[in-house]
Amino acid sequence: MQRKGSLLSFREDIQVLDATLRDGGLVNDFRFGDDFAKALYQMNLAAGVDYMEFGYKASKKSFDTSKFGKYKFCDEEDIRAVVGDNDTPLKISVMADVGRTDYETDIIEAKDSVIDMVRVATYLNEIPAAVRMVEYCAAKGYETCVNVMAVSKAREEEISSALEILGESPVNVIYIVDSYGSLYPEQIAKLTLSYLEAGEKYKKIIGMHAHNNQQLAFGNTIEAASWGASLLDATVNGMGRGAGNCAMELLLGFLKNPKYRIEPVLQFITDYMLPLKDQGVVWGYDIPYLLTGRLNEHPNAAIRCVREKNTDYAAFHRALLDKEC
Amino acid sequence: MQRKGSLLSFREDIQVLDATLRDGGLVNDFRFGDDFAKALYQMNLAAGVDYMEFGYKASKKSFDTSKFGKYKFCDEEDIRAVVGDNDTPLKISVMADVGRTDYETDIIEAKDSVIDMVRVATYLNEIPAAVRMVEYCAAKGYETCVNVMAVSKAREEEISSALEILGESPVNVIYIVDSYGSLYPEQIAKLTLSYLEAGEKYKKIIGMHAHNNQQLAFGNTIEAASWGASLLDATVNGMGRGAGNCAMELLLGFLKNPKYRIEPVLQFITDYMLPLKDQGVVWGYDIPYLLTGRLNEHPNAAIRCVREKNTDYAAFHRALLDKEC
Repeated sequence: MQRKGSLLSFREDIQVLDATLRDGGLVNDFRFGDDFAKALYQMNLAAGVDYMEFGYKASKKSFDTSKFGKYKFCDEEDIRAVVGDNDTPLKISVMADVGRTDYETDIIEAKDSVIDMVRVATYLNEIPAAVRMVEYCAAKGYETCVNVMAVSKAREEEISSALEILGESPVNVIYIVDSYGSLYPEQIAKLTLSYLEAGEKYKKIIGMHAHNNQQLAFGNTIEAASWGASLLDATVNGMGRGAGNCAMELLLGFLKNPKYRIEPVLQFITDYMLPLKDQGVVWGYDIPYLLTGRLNEHPNAAIRCVREKNTDYAAFHRALLDKEC
Repeated sequence: MQRKGSLLSFREDIQVLDATLRDGGLVNDFRFGDDFAKALYQMNLAAGVDYMEFGYKASKKSFDTSKFGKYKFCDEEDIRAVVGDNDTPLKISVMADVGRTDYETDIIEAKDSVIDMVRVATYLNEIPAAVRMVEYCAAKGYETCVNVMAVSKAREEEISSALEILGESPVNVIYIVDSYGSLYPEQIAKLTLSYLEAGEKYKKIIGMHAHNNQQLAFGNTIEAASWGASLLDATVNGMGRGAGNCAMELLLGFLKNPKYRIEPVLQFITDYMLPLKDQGVVWGYDIPYLLTGRLNEHPNAAIRCVREKNTDYAAFHRALLDKEC
């Protein structure tokens, strides 16, 4: 296989999805102000971003609505309060977790919704349930996407089996997700090639969602893109759970398509992200995340370590090795 | 060309150079306490690091010794105060800038020195002077190294001409240096292959020194290593000018050679690096560095921007584009 395109040209097929409200919402329980969401929407329009993900379609039976901001649930009217009828080229997406979404009641006909794409997040052992959700949403008229999480823990056989099942489904986009931020670029290259093989066979777009545990979120994203992944997740300032994601400002600084503009992102950082950090909202690379990433473990223990301001990193590392945290 | 080795094996030829005192010294004018340097030396021994760079051999005629800590000058007795006779496998290096070192008086016979390697830092237009320094140091009995800075601004023809001249010299190691943190992994791969071609022809080791302006210092370092670069620079916590360097904890977390141990580095971060940050010493990825890196410019304007706590990033970006800062 060859890399696609060159560093000085640009590929028309590459699109960018802003996941700031969604993955960032995992940091602050989705407690973003209306002004924040509106300014982010305007930023995405001005920056030429292709998709803006507003949050989750979480089940109100499973989650207490008083404990989360509204973008955990993404009611139609809450999105419309920001985007109106969204008569723009920017598409709106929401994420729906397998088993934590009342999709048969909460996801309405696409023609009545301002949402363009539903992204189903699934573990490998839930793929059949994910396919059912995809079929439901596709029948309602949405673009659909499946984010297969935690593939760094999976055997190749499981991944190729999942890709075959998803290939046969009506899903439009299949995402490589480095949930634990544990994969190195060489591994991303190999995964991308195997996803692309299925993508070419079944006419699916391949996407990339990276985490920054080892300061590789941006590097892995452009590695995947260089081989042919074409829907790329980013968040402003890399805001996201734990070590965070690929930073929008890095990604738009890299992509050569003249439709992308970095300056609205810079202005948004000054006006909205720095105040968020000043309020004590914390994310981004830190030693505990490196350690769980390197060990290919879920970041929960690291998130606890950072929250408790535990800086005895050597002891934390030993506890991880002993599986005691 | 093929990548060398695999992600699960390790290459005996790969060695790690700790540049914390040297590149980190650019952040705090080399004002490290004796306890810091001693603990760092012990850390490097315990972690299996191969080289420790103590700082610069700067000219005392050109620089006021009262304005810098001692590792700007690296007097023999100041290194010996930390390492004694250094009867260990860890080698000691110092950097000497072309035109800013009184090497003919300050660099003594290697047999009388505790220093093992002299690294000459040069711009492309100073290569003949660098070669003269290399010849001098090699004749004195040192390992020698040349760091060719700012190659992201150079034409390929200049680089290959420099590699030929250095190839003919007695230098042992030639470094790829991404001074502005502007290069992407695909570019690092190409540069590494061209350096390796000269390296194989002339029997030189190829090294990699990265900067983190675009959060690619670690990614670019392992990219270069994957193709065959084998002397890799890192600093604890990535401490270094502006956006800093490849973090030692990331690099040792990646390398599979069992001689490397990450835990002494974690302990050193807790005991020495966090207090340094608490004292207000600032380095690491920040938006202004991304912007100079992306534009392939020297980070000086970004360093000023960060020091002045100027967070109007969009205005800073426009000024960079207008070359007004």
